[in-house]
Amino acid sequence: MKKIIYLDNAATTKTAPEVVDAMLPYFTEAYGNPSSVYQFSAQSKDALMEARGKIANVLGAKKEEIYFTAGGSEADNWALKATFEALKDKGNHIITTKIEHHAILHTCEYLEKNRGAKITYLDVDENGLVRLEDLKNAITPETILISIMFANNEIGTIEPIAEIGKIAKENGILFHTDAVQAFAQVPINVNEMNIDMLSSSAHKINGPKGIGFLYIRKGVKIRSFVHGGAQERKRRAGTENVPGIVGYGVAAELALNTMEARIKKETELRDYMIQRIETEIPYVKVNGDRVKRLPNNVNVSIQFIEGESLLLMLDSFGICASSGSACTSGSLDPSHVLLAIGLPHEIAHGSLRMTLSAETTKEDIDFTVDKLKGIVETLRKMSPLYEDFVKKQK
Amino acid sequence: MKKIIYLDNAATTKTAPEVVDAMLPYFTEAYGNPSSVYQFSAQSKDALMEARGKIANVLGAKKEEIYFTAGGSEADNWALKATFEALKDKGNHIITTKIEHHAILHTCEYLEKNRGAKITYLDVDENGLVRLEDLKNAITPETILISIMFANNEIGTIEPIAEIGKIAKENGILFHTDAVQAFAQVPINVNEMNIDMLSSSAHKINGPKGIGFLYIRKGVKIRSFVHGGAQERKRRAGTENVPGIVGYGVAAELALNTMEARIKKETELRDYMIQRIETEIPYVKVNGDRVKRLPNNVNVSIQFIEGESLLLMLDSFGICASSGSACTSGSLDPSHVLLAIGLPHEIAHGSLRMTLSAETTKEDIDFTVDKLKGIVETLRKMSPLYEDFVKKQK
Repeated sequence: MKKIIYLDNAATTKTAPEVVDAMLPYFTEAYGNPSSVYQFSAQSKDALMEARGKIANVLGAKKEEIYFTAGGSEADNWALKATFEALKDKGNHIITTKIEHHAILHTCEYLEKNRGAKITYLDVDENGLVRLEDLKNAITPETILISIMFANNEIGTIEPIAEIGKIAKENGILFHTDAVQAFAQVPINVNEMNIDMLSSSAHKINGPKGIGFLYIRKGVKIRSFVHGGAQERKRRAGTENVPGIVGYGVAAELALNTMEARIKKETELRDYMIQRIETEIPYVKVNGDRVKRLPNNVNVSIQFIEGESLLLMLDSFGICASSGSACTSGSLDPSHVLLAIGLPHEIAHGSLRMTLSAETTKEDIDFTVDKLKGIVETLRKMSPLYEDFVKKQK
Repeated sequence: MKKIIYLDNAATTKTAPEVVDAMLPYFTEAYGNPSSVYQFSAQSKDALMEARGKIANVLGAKKEEIYFTAGGSEADNWALKATFEALKDKGNHIITTKIEHHAILHTCEYLEKNRGAKITYLDVDENGLVRLEDLKNAITPETILISIMFANNEIGTIEPIAEIGKIAKENGILFHTDAVQAFAQVPINVNEMNIDMLSSSAHKINGPKGIGFLYIRKGVKIRSFVHGGAQERKRRAGTENVPGIVGYGVAAELALNTMEARIKKETELRDYMIQRIETEIPYVKVNGDRVKRLPNNVNVSIQFIEGESLLLMLDSFGICASSGSACTSGSLDPSHVLLAIGLPHEIAHGSLRMTLSAETTKEDIDFTVDKLKGIVETLRKMSPLYEDFVKKQK
């Protein structure tokens, strides 16, 4: 197989071999249902508890505040729908942003259209940051929930979560954050940041696909989203995905132990890549905040070029990148995030996201930027937009 | 480790080694997000399609009618909640039974309490069978959905699904069946049986935990339960659990290929076990239909004995069994299923479910019955109920 340079770690990551090794015994040996009473199932039960502890540890949370789900989308749906269900008699207003993941945006649309919710979608500034004044101004006596993502999946911008948490707390409003891109990637403390609920997904941090969690602060009285059996302290029905949960625990532990070094390494490579692109390719715009940014996120708009063509040509060199989020690829609409930070349609269309991992090397980055330069030149030669632009310049 | 005789295959099963082997490459090698555009992800996309085909094949369904979920509970929640959402302006009445899994019963309770649904819970006969006349009589112009399980998880009774499907179709009502215990265990054809929606879970058929599906007949216009990204033809958001789906496909294929032989073998062992228990242990009642019964299900009530003590003593010999469903174990309430078939509380409390697998041997059964006899004798000697009974007999 051709060598792959995988720069789409915001879409999904390779499951770490240590994670797979930890999962294996729970498929064929300790496969008991954790809800069963016999001794054979005690191993599964213990494994769940251990994984819960490892995950809680990343957040400064308590074990019993971690509720496993099938992933980030389920966790987001749960947080929003169950909060609305629990508090709709108190108020029907939810505040979120225009740059949330679709798991938040489409859930909000559902609540608006079908359940009588009123949603405020906050604007963001040109770097993707929520303005705290806007948030304060949006609060009404009807506001029951603020849901603002920890870090954006496309442009990597990290929101002022502690400040948002403080505002929520001062106003007695629950605060949920979609931390799918941030969990175990940057330091998070749910207590210091006044986070009441937090969504996360294992496959973004070298854990397996199909497992996530919702952190629910003790005392937050939301009920189930998936109704049924008494699993997860009667809050999330369904036989626990024991191997997945074990894998998540190990992935979280690994990510926490390596976080400091990884942040340092990825930030250096990220900034090196951005600097090379900005220096060597003309008419390029870096999207997202340069400092308040996920360590592994590079997002640039390359003028006069279609993102799809760019991706295909990068792919021909074995470079895996993305133009928006994987969830909406296949769609020809420009990214809602890039539009929200004020990019015109034609520039949003030429955007490129490259997200690094701990395994990414300087050689990978150099190879990618070298190829990118050539591809941009080739594509611009074919671009009528670029031709017009060059003529006008003369 | 002590040898285990695992007779709780209705709670969960061992993941087959072939299944794990098939999953492995999708963790660390072909780990691409199926929604991504580059070539590297084509493997994941192809793997999804192949698994979908293998599963559809078990049901006589079309590939594109299979929608992956995190398991049976999510599929049940989806079917009921989304059908109610889609058809609530047409009617608010759902018909189900008293012996459904909690994923159905608690979802119905949610819809009743929070969404204005009206639910009819049909009684069943002494063997757990729905009476078709009762079903017909329950239908009103407001009825939008019939949800009746394919086979009961506790007593193994197989419902008259084809007849129920016919009634639903004649009345223009959607028909959903929770087939978590039946999928790939007994023959199912969604077309011949007029099934519109069907729930299933991989870990009941030697597939991995954390993955299931909802079959939705083409033309049935229900929308999402988990909102977000455009996965699963825009009907179920969240990055696909590729290894889990691959494992499910292989498990389904294996189960289908071995179904005939397995049914024959398990039925023989099941009936042999029932016969030995009935012959050699006095004051025992077999629960569930003797013929319309899952091939691997044995469920008996043993009078004058507490189910929990029985389980603990069986456990001391390495025998894994259950008193009800795993989802409710830990609860001291007697099983709602056993109460629904008319057992008095004290008899329902002494019930024992043993569910076989393809690996179960005659030696396992003999060992288990031998131990069970001794345990029953010991426990009855300590039972004041039994003492009273014996005194009265004299």
